[in-house]
Amino acid sequence: MSVDITQPAQMKGSPIVILVEPQMAENIGTTARAMANFGLTRMRLVSPRDGWPQPDAYPSASGADASLDAATVFDSVPAAVADCHRVFATCPRPRHIVIPVRTARAAAEDLRETASRNLRSAVLFGPERAGLENEDMACADTLVRYPLNPEHMSLNLAQAVMILAYEWWTAAEPTPPRALMTNETRVATKGELEGFLNRLVGELDATGFLDNREKRPGMVRNLRHWFQRGEVTEQELRTLHGVVTELSRGRMRRGRPEREDASPPWAEGT
Amino acid sequence: MSVDITQPAQMKGSPIVILVEPQMAENIGTTARAMANFGLTRMRLVSPRDGWPQPDAYPSASGADASLDAATVFDSVPAAVADCHRVFATCPRPRHIVIPVRTARAAAEDLRETASRNLRSAVLFGPERAGLENEDMACADTLVRYPLNPEHMSLNLAQAVMILAYEWWTAAEPTPPRALMTNETRVATKGELEGFLNRLVGELDATGFLDNREKRPGMVRNLRHWFQRGEVTEQELRTLHGVVTELSRGRMRRGRPEREDASPPWAEGT
Repeated sequence: MSVDITQPAQMKGSPIVILVEPQMAENIGTTARAMANFGLTRMRLVSPRDGWPQPDAYPSASGADASLDAATVFDSVPAAVADCHRVFATCPRPRHIVIPVRTARAAAEDLRETASRNLRSAVLFGPERAGLENEDMACADTLVRYPLNPEHMSLNLAQAVMILAYEWWTAAEPTPPRALMTNETRVATKGELEGFLNRLVGELDATGFLDNREKRPGMVRNLRHWFQRGEVTEQELRTLHGVVTELSRGRMRRGRPEREDASPPWAEGT
Repeated sequence: MSVDITQPAQMKGSPIVILVEPQMAENIGTTARAMANFGLTRMRLVSPRDGWPQPDAYPSASGADASLDAATVFDSVPAAVADCHRVFATCPRPRHIVIPVRTARAAAEDLRETASRNLRSAVLFGPERAGLENEDMACADTLVRYPLNPEHMSLNLAQAVMILAYEWWTAAEPTPPRALMTNETRVATKGELEGFLNRLVGELDATGFLDNREKRPGMVRNLRHWFQRGEVTEQELRTLHGVVTELSRGRMRRGRPEREDASPPWAEGT
């Protein structure tokens, strides 16, 4: 299975993730996993503490082995970014460094824009605890800041990479913000809904539930509002017809019941 | 230190995270950590496999102990959501269930809107491998879908919670998408920049670098464009004045040099 063929369009021009002096091989693996979830596959390592490759990275990569296999090693940040056109550096607390700071979301838009011009981008992530040195940040043209709870700032390496990867992926996400999955059925037409509502009101009239002439218009309107709101499907409407049929049969079998029994739970307070 | 006093405004009305049948205590801890990074503190557990409390949860919570201390246990999803007004269920592959599906980002806007009306929201997350049962999802009014690389869908529990928490936090983030941190200095005025550029061009004229009458306007314009683009600070401008002074002194000491030596690297191709 060739990566070039199966690669979704969202992955085109994806930025290179550069881990600067990563300490634990396991963290390199979890980072590869987090990247893969959101379509990032290219990883570079600057002076990994324990050398590279490391078998310990693979178990935590959860199948993102190809990214680890393809990871390349450099002995300095300038060497690692030499072929890149844009370099972003992640930095939780920008200080004493005058480079534009963007949020992860805005940086992702930047990365997409850069990719659309066929330019190569990289994002620098510092070692687990210390973060990037100022010297490393001076190799970047843009800093990336994460919105974080000031009371608890403890993103680990893979999480920091994942947030950026998530924003990268989402920036090209074609999914609408809201969708109703109807699967084999479809949303009912208003005519079908009206047919059901008329039948329901007719049945309720027959039970005497709507006998209160003064309250009747409000009660019917409330019922209508509720059924309108939920985008009922054609299949659900058939079920509801069945419910009304069954309830009506029970009523007919038993004869007209006491008012208390006839009121369905949703009629309370109407 | 009271939580009520130090709580940032973004945390007001934060949704409850409900972990349904979580397996590993360690994962409950990493989830609490991920939540805390983005201002979520309220956790409920439905039938945790190994019971609750669990000392093994604390080491991986990285200081988010208060959320673990306050976590409450329920024996069913309906019991856990009984006091909530809105219930979201995370679901990587919605199927056979007709509930509106929103992206994590859109769901976060929903959660903010719900919080603004002082309504209580909860988000359901299923067990580590299996995810939520259809029965559990039927307790929700909205499904949450994560944009994910279809080739590698392996978000772990804490990561799934973190993406939602990140979106929740970011939905109220007051930080502008782009900022230049100038710290003690400030962006130079255009007048200050103009003063520097005129001086630079004067020095370059003196070296003979701009002798080519035909190319001179374009070369000067290129220089101007470059200096305009970077929002130079007042402090950097003083440094640049110093650079020009030093280079000019060298030139004066050495007398007029060969053209090759006088051309700074950025003049290449002009």
